[in-house]
Amino acid sequence: MFKKEIVVKTEKQFISLKNEISDLIRDQRGAGIVNVFVAHTTCAIKVMEGEILLLSDVEEYLEKTWPQNGNYRHDMIGIRDVPITERINGYSHMRQLFFSCEANIPCQDGKMQLGQWQDVFLVEFDPMRERKVIITYISVM
Amino acid sequence: MFKKEIVVKTEKQFISLKNEISDLIRDQRGAGIVNVFVAHTTCAIKVMEGEILLLSDVEEYLEKTWPQNGNYRHDMIGIRDVPITERINGYSHMRQLFFSCEANIPCQDGKMQLGQWQDVFLVEFDPMRERKVIITYISVM
Amino acid sequence: MFKKEIVVKTEKQFISLKNEISDLIRDQRGAGIVNVFVAHTTCAIKVMEGEILLLSDVEEYLEKTWPQNGNYRHDMIGIRDVPITERINGYSHMRQLFFSCEANIPCQDGKMQLGQWQDVFLVEFDPMRERKVIITYISVM
Repeated sequence: MFKKEIVVKTEKQFISLKNEISDLIRDQRGAGIVNVFVAHTTCAIKVMEGEILLLSDVEEYLEKTWPQNGNYRHDMIGIRDVPITERINGYSHMRQLFFSCEANIPCQDGKMQLGQWQDVFLVEFDPMRERKVIITYISVM
Repeated sequence: MFKKEIVVKTEKQFISLKNEISDLIRDQRGAGIVNVFVAHTTCAIKVMEGEILLLSDVEEYLEKTWPQNGNYRHDMIGIRDVPITERINGYSHMRQLFFSCEANIPCQDGKMQLGQWQDVFLVEFDPMRERKVIITYISVM
Repeated sequence: MFKKEIVVKTEKQFISLKNEISDLIRDQRGAGIVNVFVAHTTCAIKVMEGEILLLSDVEEYLEKTWPQNGNYRHDMIGIRDVPITERINGYSHMRQLFFSCEANIPCQDGKMQLGQWQDVFLVEFDPMRERKVIITYISVM
């Protein structure tokens, strides 16, 4: 059992964490669950396929549903108790709601039991950040 | 390790559980995961920011997408095997689908490792209820 | 504590796993969490009510939002590095995004602590498959 924190620089929207998690759990034996949690409100953890045309479908859906230049009351910085330089990221928060900040994946003998097409992504809705991801391994037997 | 049940009276739509969970896990040492699970089908658990203008954006999106006075076959009470006084809450069920009934949050030395803007909400889609929330702490090391 | 894999043949869209999970965890004592994980990218695990008219509301929403005969770049098989016989399932992937591939449910003395209306479904977006579901039980005390 262990817990580790990693920092991910988000220069892209979809960043696979599969290799990094795989390295961290490599020495575990038996069965377990790995919890992957991102400690931020405008990005997500999602188990999905990383095929690039599919990622473009996802981006198109997000932009259509919560456009970056849409009107969000969260962006009325002037009436909020925050610096006037606060990020305009209402769309990022709304997109996050569609996802989750965590995933819980079964493991066996040091490997995540992902399906053939499953990958674990950090999905960034408010790019160019340093994101803290907490990875906790629970040994089950 | 422990499990506790709490009852939450839902007079508002977004009810922070952060203080109540924090109190329950305060005495734990080392690393762990806390599972927060609501045992109902028309409310949700969501890790998100509680800024009030953002909550109004969320409510607007939910009302636009699944309006309270929309047409849902689930509300055809007359053809279902339920009392005629059954709640009209098709919109509540649909909104729940957008969310989840649980969250799993890493902890360290008696504190959830939430990010600066993360809060843990019970989100109510079918208000004025008593909701059972089950809080389970898994010690990891 | 244990982990089991089951194979589910998906001839329907909503397949309750409640009985099968209940059978697997029956002999556990004390408190625990059961993690239910499906190792595929075009189906989901969802805790929800199984009332049939509600399921028709869900299907209508999914078909309206991500129609089966919509245009998805993921379906441009000709430009992808896959056999020309690859399934046309962009809509299935998009629908999966709305859900999750896992659920984590508290248990007590060999029973899931689901609410009165909660059921655990495998939701299939790309039907007529054999799906691998991994069920892991974590003992908490």
